[in-house]
Amino acid sequence: MAQGTYVEQEYNRDTSYIEDRIVADPDPAKAPGSDTPIGEQQWPVEPGRYRLVVSRACPWANRAIIVRRLLGLEDVISMGVAGPTHDADSWTFDLDPDHLDPVLQIPRLKDAYETRWPGYPRGITVPAVVDVPSGGVVTNDFPQITEDLSTQWREHHREGAPDLWPQEHLEEMATINKRVYTEVNNGVYRCGFAGTQESYDAAYERLWTALDWLEGHLADRRYLLGERITEADVRLFTTLARFDAAYHGHFKCNRSKLTEMPVLWAYARDLFTTPGFGDTTDFVHIKRHYYEVHRDINPTGVVPQGPDLTGWLEPHGRESLGGSPFGDGTAPGPIAEGERVPVEHNPFVDPATGLVRPA
Amino acid sequence: MAQGTYVEQEYNRDTSYIEDRIVADPDPAKAPGSDTPIGEQQWPVEPGRYRLVVSRACPWANRAIIVRRLLGLEDVISMGVAGPTHDADSWTFDLDPDHLDPVLQIPRLKDAYETRWPGYPRGITVPAVVDVPSGGVVTNDFPQITEDLSTQWREHHREGAPDLWPQEHLEEMATINKRVYTEVNNGVYRCGFAGTQESYDAAYERLWTALDWLEGHLADRRYLLGERITEADVRLFTTLARFDAAYHGHFKCNRSKLTEMPVLWAYARDLFTTPGFGDTTDFVHIKRHYYEVHRDINPTGVVPQGPDLTGWLEPHGRESLGGSPFGDGTAPGPIAEGERVPVEHNPFVDPATGLVRPA
Repeated sequence: MAQGTYVEQEYNRDTSYIEDRIVADPDPAKAPGSDTPIGEQQWPVEPGRYRLVVSRACPWANRAIIVRRLLGLEDVISMGVAGPTHDADSWTFDLDPDHLDPVLQIPRLKDAYETRWPGYPRGITVPAVVDVPSGGVVTNDFPQITEDLSTQWREHHREGAPDLWPQEHLEEMATINKRVYTEVNNGVYRCGFAGTQESYDAAYERLWTALDWLEGHLADRRYLLGERITEADVRLFTTLARFDAAYHGHFKCNRSKLTEMPVLWAYARDLFTTPGFGDTTDFVHIKRHYYEVHRDINPTGVVPQGPDLTGWLEPHGRESLGGSPFGDGTAPGPIAEGERVPVEHNPFVDPATGLVRPA
Repeated sequence: MAQGTYVEQEYNRDTSYIEDRIVADPDPAKAPGSDTPIGEQQWPVEPGRYRLVVSRACPWANRAIIVRRLLGLEDVISMGVAGPTHDADSWTFDLDPDHLDPVLQIPRLKDAYETRWPGYPRGITVPAVVDVPSGGVVTNDFPQITEDLSTQWREHHREGAPDLWPQEHLEEMATINKRVYTEVNNGVYRCGFAGTQESYDAAYERLWTALDWLEGHLADRRYLLGERITEADVRLFTTLARFDAAYHGHFKCNRSKLTEMPVLWAYARDLFTTPGFGDTTDFVHIKRHYYEVHRDINPTGVVPQGPDLTGWLEPHGRESLGGSPFGDGTAPGPIAEGERVPVEHNPFVDPATGLVRPA
């Protein structure tokens, strides 16, 4: 995702999406091709039919990569990976042979938006789920995409997959997800894209108020909702993984580095070494995206060489809080060869398995 | 100082200065008004005659502020303080009543350059020493200015003043000063003003090679030349004091923060609490200068609120290495009321004395 506007000098994210859903039990009256307008249509869960298009740079897309892997949906929903930078109006498949997505056979994600919606007037964002037979985008509604992977695709989850949307915690998770979204996930952008000192100052206070709250909240619980990982942890992790690499300097979120917040840093390291999290983190794509694309705040496009990443595998000590990431379930196994983060982009990845090597 | 050019996309500092000197025993043939060209003239040491013009933001000017204070030359050489930002071609006296330097009665430092040298073609830099009677700049040759404060004004030093240019260490100091200047003091600018990824990458490697060397060099000696502070420490300190506040993010010197380099951070804290160093450091002016002036790398001009400064007074433990900052001499005392850094700009300053409060 990379769309937003400045309104009265404060950054406001464009939150208009194609809000179709893929569901286990679709309403026939809302089928694609019916009179139901785009944005309200319902598509059927169907293994092999859809392609998740992501960029590893993007925190909102990284959520979907993590969830797909945690749930073991790799063989059910394929994945196309756009490059870390994009041109003026689209993410592009410049990492692929001939710069074409090998399944969709298109050079730019925008083509899939146009196939679905000629003249599509809003931002071309990732993650996007594309209907492979028709080549059109089904949805780019990122919070709904990951929720539906958990709740609608349940019959296709791998054995031992975690329940990322546990019934007993739905209300608490909604509260935390909302705060993390507005104050942290989006809060860093509000700092970085502030057009005035006043809007930056206000954004900075909001961000650090929330991070201080999280530092307290996580001091005595292993994960945001207690004993096991949930979608809430996925959503917080993708911002933390980008914090020192991009937000601290590029977005001026610089009261301290993540490495200087003891609880959050240990929490982030705990997740980083949990299969699904660190092994889907591409530090090179993250840095290239932010520093090369946002020329309005980094005119030279120069990408910093720092930060030194060596601390990520230091013992985090969070086991003493109890809990276990997968509860009664199991961790996902090695990553398919074509989907591994290259070791040049994440020094902790074992090239033979795609997993983050144990410390 | 704030002048330089991009040559083949690498930053090169403009090192052409007015190189007149103020000396204890001037050659009459080189007197101002003689046939000796500007830049080679010699002016007499004379209490009350000269005014040191600085900005507290500028590391090169901060050197002169520190040295003047360490040597107790405040009553002998007055000081004018320009604001942290400047217009397109001059530092300005916007901190003063009516925006006029109260002694020189000029609004812009450029006026003193023009008085000396009409049409002065180079950068208007601080520090500059101005001849008060004529109103013209004598010299802006910053390394020579501080050397001459030590070596030429000796008869006016306070009792107990340190010998910042010790005879027995001149050769070693020249070697260290050269390396610190090219690789560190100027090295951070080379990173920040790099116009291409290649020139940045090379600059980054040079900087961190030098910082790693310093981290080793200072591991077993209290100061750069051993037991006592010298000019070499002054020169390194002014860059370290700006490192996390400006260079780490704004100049992309981000392998780590100063706070993450254990030896250099302890060394910097040791100096910070030594009278003359921390008590002349103005964090607000430092940040405002870098972030507001360099619109080519920070187009919004937004100044970060970070970093959190609270660590500066943490015990540094460097006493165990032996040595003593002033050797057989003494520390300078409280700062005159008009020359104190405001507590709003440096939270460690005691407003009643201008000194950094002990931890």
